[in-house]
Amino acid sequence: MRWVLPDHIQDALPAEADKLERLRRRLLDAFRGHGYQLVIPPLLEYLDSLTTGAGQDLKLRTFKLVDQLSGKTMGVRADMTPQVARIDAHLLNRSGVSRLCYCGSVLHALPSTLTATREPLQLGAELYGHAGIDADLEIIHLLSEVMRLAEVPASRIDLGHVGLFRVLAARAGMVPEREEELFDLLQAKDLPGLRELLADVAEPVRSALLALPTLYGGAEVLDEARARLPDDAEIRAALDDLGRLADALADLPISFDLADLRGYHYHNGVVFAAYGNGSPAALALGGRYDRIGQAFGRGRPATGFSLDLRELALGLPDSIQAGAILAPADSDAELRSAVAQLRAEGEVVMTALPGHDGSWKEAGCDRQLIKRDDRWTVEALQGE
Amino acid sequence: MRWVLPDHIQDALPAEADKLERLRRRLLDAFRGHGYQLVIPPLLEYLDSLTTGAGQDLKLRTFKLVDQLSGKTMGVRADMTPQVARIDAHLLNRSGVSRLCYCGSVLHALPSTLTATREPLQLGAELYGHAGIDADLEIIHLLSEVMRLAEVPASRIDLGHVGLFRVLAARAGMVPEREEELFDLLQAKDLPGLRELLADVAEPVRSALLALPTLYGGAEVLDEARARLPDDAEIRAALDDLGRLADALADLPISFDLADLRGYHYHNGVVFAAYGNGSPAALALGGRYDRIGQAFGRGRPATGFSLDLRELALGLPDSIQAGAILAPADSDAELRSAVAQLRAEGEVVMTALPGHDGSWKEAGCDRQLIKRDDRWTVEALQGE
Repeated sequence: MRWVLPDHIQDALPAEADKLERLRRRLLDAFRGHGYQLVIPPLLEYLDSLTTGAGQDLKLRTFKLVDQLSGKTMGVRADMTPQVARIDAHLLNRSGVSRLCYCGSVLHALPSTLTATREPLQLGAELYGHAGIDADLEIIHLLSEVMRLAEVPASRIDLGHVGLFRVLAARAGMVPEREEELFDLLQAKDLPGLRELLADVAEPVRSALLALPTLYGGAEVLDEARARLPDDAEIRAALDDLGRLADALADLPISFDLADLRGYHYHNGVVFAAYGNGSPAALALGGRYDRIGQAFGRGRPATGFSLDLRELALGLPDSIQAGAILAPADSDAELRSAVAQLRAEGEVVMTALPGHDGSWKEAGCDRQLIKRDDRWTVEALQGE
Repeated sequence: MRWVLPDHIQDALPAEADKLERLRRRLLDAFRGHGYQLVIPPLLEYLDSLTTGAGQDLKLRTFKLVDQLSGKTMGVRADMTPQVARIDAHLLNRSGVSRLCYCGSVLHALPSTLTATREPLQLGAELYGHAGIDADLEIIHLLSEVMRLAEVPASRIDLGHVGLFRVLAARAGMVPEREEELFDLLQAKDLPGLRELLADVAEPVRSALLALPTLYGGAEVLDEARARLPDDAEIRAALDDLGRLADALADLPISFDLADLRGYHYHNGVVFAAYGNGSPAALALGGRYDRIGQAFGRGRPATGFSLDLRELALGLPDSIQAGAILAPADSDAELRSAVAQLRAEGEVVMTALPGHDGSWKEAGCDRQLIKRDDRWTVEALQGE
């Protein structure tokens, strides 16, 4: 059965491919209008470059290949964000702001959930060179615009701040392996596991880490966090940033989830997750990741978001499109110019091929070009 | 040096990515207008499916991966044509004609030439379900239209016919391994090698195979072939097909190369190679491949072409595009509607971010929105 595909891998047939292409163009056009320039990083890179700053999960999900030209290990990209950061840091070499966007397939050796694809079509926008919350604001507004254009308006955008976790983990004096374990337990909101891991950690850090998973909901969460987290300059600054962001985003359905540390391990500031379409899983993830550029030789502040276009396109209605027009196989010059004119107007015109009478409806035709009184006219398809 | 890419692998930075995106849209729109529906096959498949009907060269160029879910060997596609044939044969299940097109990255473990990329961006169109030369004609006309749209009009389109080779090889009584060797020698036009391989082959087949590499040029080639190749019904039919094609394509720069067996091993009828832009290498390859569908459970006649969009886009001029407009970071409602209006008209409008005065020219701005007499107006960018 040569036509069977591997699990979690699929074709996009014409109806789905049409949606993906329409949405791709609509979103890339919006990015362009906001000054985000398209870049196309390669599918393959040396493994070191691809997994820079990435967590263990992404490393495990990256397909490895041996480069027959160099003998080195390469990976097929599982995430494009570090690639785009490499382009900003090393290739564009701008001193001011750069805005970049991208759209391409990534591969996951293992699916991230039971129903996830192993070939997401990742689309995203990234803003480099500005460390303030104005950049985060622009990115969150842009994400909300993207969801509106995809006809899946955001029903909820959760804000978090990785800085809260980093300060508390540092104050708990954790070695990197335990910090990674703590990270995983927090993401899973696994309170029993957290209590065990934090048994030896001194107060007030222990209570603060145990409180994080409960700090989610509306604007009241920030006040609660100020009360329950230690009085620390960095923590205060992170909570103030979140408060200012939420104030400036009053037109969007903002909420908070202070234990939400999603995205990969490279984030270091404000992070966010956008929901819509009734899906329990986030449709887009993003946030600030000021550290990656350093690995590529030039540290630059960075913030952005990415999403799986396949997932987002599920919300898009099928195109309401007229059927195709069948043109006879005839080298008449007037016919050719009528066909060219119809195509220029956006119509689909298929040329008939001998021996296929009766199958043009199946191919999508509902009209045909017929010569009447010496003129080529479009009429309903007859005789099928 | 984490920013170094593997050999024969490259990023497309904004200027090139913009060309690729513009050309991609222009060509997919042309395909759509002709009734070719977009499909998006996956990057990964089981190796057996990917290399169906493919020659040894393509098998060697396919990256192999172990599927952690099934333990089976998968490949990263090195050619999309067999994938699209699988979609036609197995998934669409149409009895009449289907016209399909595609555009996506393929990976080659080894580059095909010293300067070739290992990640071509393959774009192509395929016509299934029609065995006659009307289908080949349509495909060659479409290819010529594609090259015109890419602003690289075809300077030469070489026609060949794999049937000539197959008949002669069968009459020479060759085992498959020697047939493959013969195929390679013919493609290389290696006459000494051919003489050695054919030493034991009887006349008139031996002379005919030795003559093939000399049969290239204008319309006279067909007459010469009729004189020098054995009198055989299949050979006559193949030469007649080529003659009728050339007559019908009189508006294109057609020539012949009867030893040109390019594309991969799956072709079985008329094949063609299109040149342009002064490049010695073909920009597009195509032809008839009626056998692949069988491997996927349903044999269907098939013809089509494919090309590397990266290569083709080299001929496209940079877009003549106005610079971007800088908008102040200001939540004024009139400003917002002015910005939305400019973006709807196709302008790029970037929002200023605090602390970046003096760097907006670098980011691509040449104009700015300024409030004069209570109205937002676009003026030349000042003070940079």
